[in-house]
Amino acid sequence: MSAGMTLVDAALKAGVDIETPCGARGACGRCIVRVVSGNVDTDSAGKLSGEQLDAGFVLACRTRVADTDLTIEVPQAKDLEGGQFGDSLEGIRVLNPSLMPGPQDIAPPTGKVTMDVSAASGGDGLSDLDRFVMAMRDRTGATRVNCPLGVVQTLAESLRASSGKLTVTSAHSDTRHTVVAVEPGDTGRRQYGVAIDIGTTTIAALLVAFPEARIVAVHADYNGQVSCGLDVISRINYARHKRGLDELRKRVLETVNGLIGLAAQSGEIRARDITSAAVSGNTTMIHLLLGLNPDYIRLEPYTPTLLDVPVFSAGDVGLDMCPRAPVVISPAVGSYVGGDITAGVLCTDLAADAEDICLFMDIGTNGEIVVGNRDFLMTCACSAGPAFEGGGIGCGMRAAEGAIERVEIDPKTGVASVGVIGNAKPRGICGSGMISLLSGLFSACWLDQAGKLDRDRPSPAITVKGRRAAYTIVPAKKSGTGEDIVITELDIENIVRAKAAVYSACAMILNQIGIGFESLSKVYIAGGFGRYIDLDGAVAIGLLPDIERSKFHFIGNSSLAGTYMLLVSERHRRAQRELARRMTYIELNTDPGYMDHYTAALFLPHTDPGLFPSVHMGR
Amino acid sequence: MSAGMTLVDAALKAGVDIETPCGARGACGRCIVRVVSGNVDTDSAGKLSGEQLDAGFVLACRTRVADTDLTIEVPQAKDLEGGQFGDSLEGIRVLNPSLMPGPQDIAPPTGKVTMDVSAASGGDGLSDLDRFVMAMRDRTGATRVNCPLGVVQTLAESLRASSGKLTVTSAHSDTRHTVVAVEPGDTGRRQYGVAIDIGTTTIAALLVAFPEARIVAVHADYNGQVSCGLDVISRINYARHKRGLDELRKRVLETVNGLIGLAAQSGEIRARDITSAAVSGNTTMIHLLLGLNPDYIRLEPYTPTLLDVPVFSAGDVGLDMCPRAPVVISPAVGSYVGGDITAGVLCTDLAADAEDICLFMDIGTNGEIVVGNRDFLMTCACSAGPAFEGGGIGCGMRAAEGAIERVEIDPKTGVASVGVIGNAKPRGICGSGMISLLSGLFSACWLDQAGKLDRDRPSPAITVKGRRAAYTIVPAKKSGTGEDIVITELDIENIVRAKAAVYSACAMILNQIGIGFESLSKVYIAGGFGRYIDLDGAVAIGLLPDIERSKFHFIGNSSLAGTYMLLVSERHRRAQRELARRMTYIELNTDPGYMDHYTAALFLPHTDPGLFPSVHMGR
Repeated sequence: MSAGMTLVDAALKAGVDIETPCGARGACGRCIVRVVSGNVDTDSAGKLSGEQLDAGFVLACRTRVADTDLTIEVPQAKDLEGGQFGDSLEGIRVLNPSLMPGPQDIAPPTGKVTMDVSAASGGDGLSDLDRFVMAMRDRTGATRVNCPLGVVQTLAESLRASSGKLTVTSAHSDTRHTVVAVEPGDTGRRQYGVAIDIGTTTIAALLVAFPEARIVAVHADYNGQVSCGLDVISRINYARHKRGLDELRKRVLETVNGLIGLAAQSGEIRARDITSAAVSGNTTMIHLLLGLNPDYIRLEPYTPTLLDVPVFSAGDVGLDMCPRAPVVISPAVGSYVGGDITAGVLCTDLAADAEDICLFMDIGTNGEIVVGNRDFLMTCACSAGPAFEGGGIGCGMRAAEGAIERVEIDPKTGVASVGVIGNAKPRGICGSGMISLLSGLFSACWLDQAGKLDRDRPSPAITVKGRRAAYTIVPAKKSGTGEDIVITELDIENIVRAKAAVYSACAMILNQIGIGFESLSKVYIAGGFGRYIDLDGAVAIGLLPDIERSKFHFIGNSSLAGTYMLLVSERHRRAQRELARRMTYIELNTDPGYMDHYTAALFLPHTDPGLFPSVHMGR
Repeated sequence: MSAGMTLVDAALKAGVDIETPCGARGACGRCIVRVVSGNVDTDSAGKLSGEQLDAGFVLACRTRVADTDLTIEVPQAKDLEGGQFGDSLEGIRVLNPSLMPGPQDIAPPTGKVTMDVSAASGGDGLSDLDRFVMAMRDRTGATRVNCPLGVVQTLAESLRASSGKLTVTSAHSDTRHTVVAVEPGDTGRRQYGVAIDIGTTTIAALLVAFPEARIVAVHADYNGQVSCGLDVISRINYARHKRGLDELRKRVLETVNGLIGLAAQSGEIRARDITSAAVSGNTTMIHLLLGLNPDYIRLEPYTPTLLDVPVFSAGDVGLDMCPRAPVVISPAVGSYVGGDITAGVLCTDLAADAEDICLFMDIGTNGEIVVGNRDFLMTCACSAGPAFEGGGIGCGMRAAEGAIERVEIDPKTGVASVGVIGNAKPRGICGSGMISLLSGLFSACWLDQAGKLDRDRPSPAITVKGRRAAYTIVPAKKSGTGEDIVITELDIENIVRAKAAVYSACAMILNQIGIGFESLSKVYIAGGFGRYIDLDGAVAIGLLPDIERSKFHFIGNSSLAGTYMLLVSERHRRAQRELARRMTYIELNTDPGYMDHYTAALFLPHTDPGLFPSVHMGR
């Protein structure tokens, strides 16, 4: 290692990837390492405790090599469970079966036809391509057949391998066909597409077999960009230099291509047999996937390069599948309401021709809200932060095996008993666990309206250090990590901020329409909370409004479900474009009223008790 | 080096490229090397003389390593003058000025427009792409604007670098525009295209500046595939394995891209400022350029994958220029009448609406013939071999500096005096020199009708070794190589075969039409003979028919000139497609009469003296 280099760079040179979720700005503390021997110049004070500094811990991003003979120890990343979660089909939940594509709707972006091409003959003066194009015209009625070079390169062999019987995969608009692949023989029964949901934190991919539109495999993994920043704003910052943008693109493609590979493996096919793709993601994720500078998303007037995305080829996008496969990308509505939302609403009555006003909220690292009916659709976004997905919380983790998803508090002792995903030893807490924990502590009065733990009643679970208190959910001896699983008041503040952002954005948009929460006929909740949601708990902490519980519908990863519908049916592709076109985007950042709503929501459940009558009754 | 490996492979492993023009079949003798120490297993007998074998010379392709401690000496390639020839504009000769594109015709495959795109605004909900497409529609009347990902990636910066003033390069068909490049500001005066002629032996590139269609630079070089085989058949053989095909594609792209780079340098532009290309080559060259298996060109029924070539992008083809630039490739008529011919005829009255019957012949490694007028066009091809381009002849070379291009024979002594290109010391002899030499020797009776040197009259220039005689054109002391420049009877046989192939193909096709040479109003001769042609000499050896000399028109590299016209004008692109469509292709290989014509032409000038009255009169 060379003197002057940061430890992050020095470690990378030595082949060790130290993750810097905040973009190496010394903000997140995730890149903590211990200097075992040798000298460093560090600027870690203020980020780490005196004890940590004394023990030789530093932040790798804030520390530079002073002495080239240096040994550092990188702690095991204990909160990365990539690939262990969500690999099941239960993400696809569509409450209204009438919205699902029926057999008559199934029309993926590419179709297959089998045809016979006349044999080569010296007399007719026709090339292989001439005879192929003539056969395509006869078989499909195409007026124009565009045959990319990659297809032409395989044509001679394919034609001669099967005496002219070919199966052609093509995309068409009207009577203009673009050939995607040519295979010898009849391969009509082998037709696949992939639906990909690119979340800021998690990426999921579904392999779909046509013509039945059957889901063959589903796989999910952390977005490989997580180590470059936890939320979209840190990613945008990371991408400000071309090298950062290139790295982010490379990382998301690595994750996506890994999932495509896994899905192909599960389906026992070759990835290049996948001949169409549908992709959804928020506006920033799509910009990064396509190698587009996302900086203008963040800068006034918040104008992205793309909202409605042209159809590019898999090869251009960088997806490891049939290189000429068309990639349909969900249209976005604005900088912070992306294609994941226009895909998600496809799973709700907002996509039906209904009069009742519904509200759709997707609670992820960003929170997005859509409200409306057949007459109007309004949408806005807020920055919830990654708390509910396990980010920015010391013991936070995804809804994976070992995650605490449910907590009960002994009202007398304040001690928690927990439910853990997979009945494993607990390793951390996921979003639904946090809601359950906070509402439990709040209901039993171990937590006050301001989010402070009770320092006056003694509890074995509460420890006070200086001005800050912390709550031990699971002690070291019962924990899967061998350490206490602890939530601090700082963590609680993060969770309260997240719920306040979401609630106040909903309140704000309804306020603009001039209705209250009680006027909504349905509230759809999408997002990565995990399987179990404590609905009363979510109301108790003020994340969800205090309305009739039967109006709430948890729809899981609706972006993935919607992307599946897009992949499968032209009707839904049209419906989505129409929905996107109809949505009116409201910019909360520039709305002076939003901050008031937000500040009022920074209490448990809210500064206005009248808004949460059932909670105050129950406490 | 490992035992059992051929010396060619062993040398390649050691970084030395031994050229094997015949495709390493032991046929051409070019891969001669000397074993300095160590043991080899060689099968070079029969190809090399006893003296050569005694001196340790072997053919690298026929020799395998027996002993891993081996030293070999690779002779300097003395006949590769890459880049030294033809770098002038004189290749562009169009006899009939009315055929040249006029100012009103100039319409390259891509055009530039300058426009103003409205600034980003939060209120309109429009992305950068939305505003760009709207401006394109307003400015050009486009109904559909296809914006490839590579363009979208630069859009945000371009828009913001120039307050929305952009110069857009696009290709269009009707009202569908495909954007090729977007630049900030007004760059309308900076527009370039490249015309590329891919010969089996030589590749040439012209850089053209628009809107004037001015030729900015011309560069030529040997086709990098030469070391994989001298003629199209050896290239096709070389390409039979995928690896060979990949290598040939790589090699031709290296040469082409080298020339594009040189042309850009000469024009003081960046290669990526070149936004259109026109390419011509024979059918095999175009298949290899595009990575298409050429094997079916060689196999009955001689059906290539492509004749009429779709427009691909420079990036797909592999050209180092603007990656989305369209590449217009000249259409071929058959396996052995390629786009170089349909480009070449654009420079002749065959492209004019004339009644007179004209004959076009392109004499290269392959000879192609087109005959006709406005009512009919017939075409055929013959295999002349590379003799006239310097290949397969011991002292043969291209028409470059140091090449003997003119020879006079002292009738008494048989000794030659020579004219050399660039007034340099002679290093070899080019095609026009060979014609001049043979006709001189023949006229002075030092060479007989069968191509044998006179063994009976003593001449210091003629040496007889066993059954073979050889003629020293320039003795070592006057030569630029320090060695005698010698032509053997074997070389003469090669030249006679080449001229016989061309002449008999012409005779054959006229025979089919039912006319004789005297009915032709013009004979256009294209090809790489060099600048000087001894017309009487060419008639004397029976390469050209014995008709009125004023009917002959040497048009140089008409393929390059025609490719220039294609690049420059839509009218010529249309005219070429129409010409290609009208040409009737005659397959000589399957015509039983051709061999009779050919055999009859294997004499000087011909077995039928009545066909060459002036020659016999002069002798």
